[in-house]
Amino acid sequence: LNPTLYILGSNSATPTRERHPTSQILKIDNQKIMLDCGEGTQNQLLKFGIRHTGITHICISHLHGDHYFGLIGLLSTMSLSGRKDVLHLIGPPPLKEIIDLQISYGGIHLNFEIAFYPTNPEERCLVTQTKSFEIISFPLKHRIHCTGFLINELPKGRHIIKSEVEKYNIPFIYYNSLKAGSDFTSSDGTMIPNKLLTEDPSPTIQYAFCSDTIFDTEIVKYIQNVDVLYHEATFMKNQEDRANLYFHSTAEQAAIIAKMAKVGQLIIGHFSSRYENLNLLLDESKTVFENTYLAEEGNSFEITKA
Amino acid sequence: LNPTLYILGSNSATPTRERHPTSQILKIDNQKIMLDCGEGTQNQLLKFGIRHTGITHICISHLHGDHYFGLIGLLSTMSLSGRKDVLHLIGPPPLKEIIDLQISYGGIHLNFEIAFYPTNPEERCLVTQTKSFEIISFPLKHRIHCTGFLINELPKGRHIIKSEVEKYNIPFIYYNSLKAGSDFTSSDGTMIPNKLLTEDPSPTIQYAFCSDTIFDTEIVKYIQNVDVLYHEATFMKNQEDRANLYFHSTAEQAAIIAKMAKVGQLIIGHFSSRYENLNLLLDESKTVFENTYLAEEGNSFEITKA
Repeated sequence: LNPTLYILGSNSATPTRERHPTSQILKIDNQKIMLDCGEGTQNQLLKFGIRHTGITHICISHLHGDHYFGLIGLLSTMSLSGRKDVLHLIGPPPLKEIIDLQISYGGIHLNFEIAFYPTNPEERCLVTQTKSFEIISFPLKHRIHCTGFLINELPKGRHIIKSEVEKYNIPFIYYNSLKAGSDFTSSDGTMIPNKLLTEDPSPTIQYAFCSDTIFDTEIVKYIQNVDVLYHEATFMKNQEDRANLYFHSTAEQAAIIAKMAKVGQLIIGHFSSRYENLNLLLDESKTVFENTYLAEEGNSFEITKA
Repeated sequence: LNPTLYILGSNSATPTRERHPTSQILKIDNQKIMLDCGEGTQNQLLKFGIRHTGITHICISHLHGDHYFGLIGLLSTMSLSGRKDVLHLIGPPPLKEIIDLQISYGGIHLNFEIAFYPTNPEERCLVTQTKSFEIISFPLKHRIHCTGFLINELPKGRHIIKSEVEKYNIPFIYYNSLKAGSDFTSSDGTMIPNKLLTEDPSPTIQYAFCSDTIFDTEIVKYIQNVDVLYHEATFMKNQEDRANLYFHSTAEQAAIIAKMAKVGQLIIGHFSSRYENLNLLLDESKTVFENTYLAEEGNSFEITKA
């Protein structure tokens, strides 16, 4: 199963009747990483039938409301639903204070632990690493402390060929050593070479998330060659002055970054409410970087090696 | 135009696919008073076509998330929409700190002033008074600092009979004195008595909002004879122990309060997600207090003198 990205919302600033603020879920190896969590994200999860139970990590890029006002509600719901597993929360340092204050005055007892990792807006940092992936934060240029996130899938064990291991009656307890590349020796001394029993794992993927940023070629070095890049595209080219003023990007600028970084695929989002027809933004981006897609809520993208 | 109550949400604790947390709008004389503001309230306003521009007062009963997590998002949207008018915010004292913290770390400049009125959980207090209504808070017994709100419409001027004032060619500038009960004397000295030109205004109404409370007959004295009472009814009678444990009420208990207080009409809400068929709660309440209605989101109630 390849990693899959689910778009829960991608509107900028304020919600509209049809569009919700930024939130995404990246599912890798049965773990779910949430990227930003605008107001109503828990409703979007319900709407699209994505359970919050498997969310292990939540990454918040910055403290503008359209990127995190849904977090406290989601945490409350997780607790009321009986969550016991630790939640890894990654975001700007004051995020912890804001959450703690609301929990404290609400007289709430969270049933699970929050492991908080404050982001550093000054440099690229490895935030955390699991068996399956690592999360790296990197600086984005926005009006306040803001970071992007790079998620690198980590090397996986070799892929076991089910029919072959069954043919040789290899017990389950040997699977891990097969995945690590070992040959198998049966009780009668016969050696079955690993290459008969396993095949190369699917290649690891890289996903980069650039939530809110002015056009900034400095970020190219952090996202070089990623398989999929999400980059905000709040405005069209004819609003470039406005984009600069508010530290946002145009669809063309997102495409230029994608091209410079030689990414496999570009997904644009964080659309200004002024655009009813998002294909205008898509077309503008495609003129510079053909392999562009829209982060429309409800869409999902299987992420494969570019 | 009679005052009208709009239900935006009435589910307890966590949202479901179909039901949102507590929020209501009471519209009196073109001013809108919001009562509680759970997450996603601004989306509910959009959904039901109610503009946030006329909201002059927001009353927050207590700091459990399902009653206020939508407030910061609504305030942000009001500011981004260019609001300039002061907003009167009424709620537990820490609410101001929570809002200020999020505004400050978000680098947000609100374009309008918030006039904050901290509630007192110990006794009945007149919070604020406008030309058309007054807002009174009163203690509710819940797990944390919690108040109900009583909204009293204030005496209105006499109702001008349009056809009559036109018949006598009475200039607009005299309308206020007619409303106050004065007779009219024309330039030729003819006196037209007020009773020919005006009629009695519609009677003033009283609405009481009891968001979250254990069954508590102490509140009866605060809500005596109101025209419409909203009272939470989280559970059914067979979950009365659970209701007590969490400081909530059953549908039967809400009806007992309504009956004791001799109110005109009862609206129940704050339904536990366990109830798919809300008519079970309605029927339970009706056995004690016949004139009961469900606070289902999207419903509106014209409030008239009982």
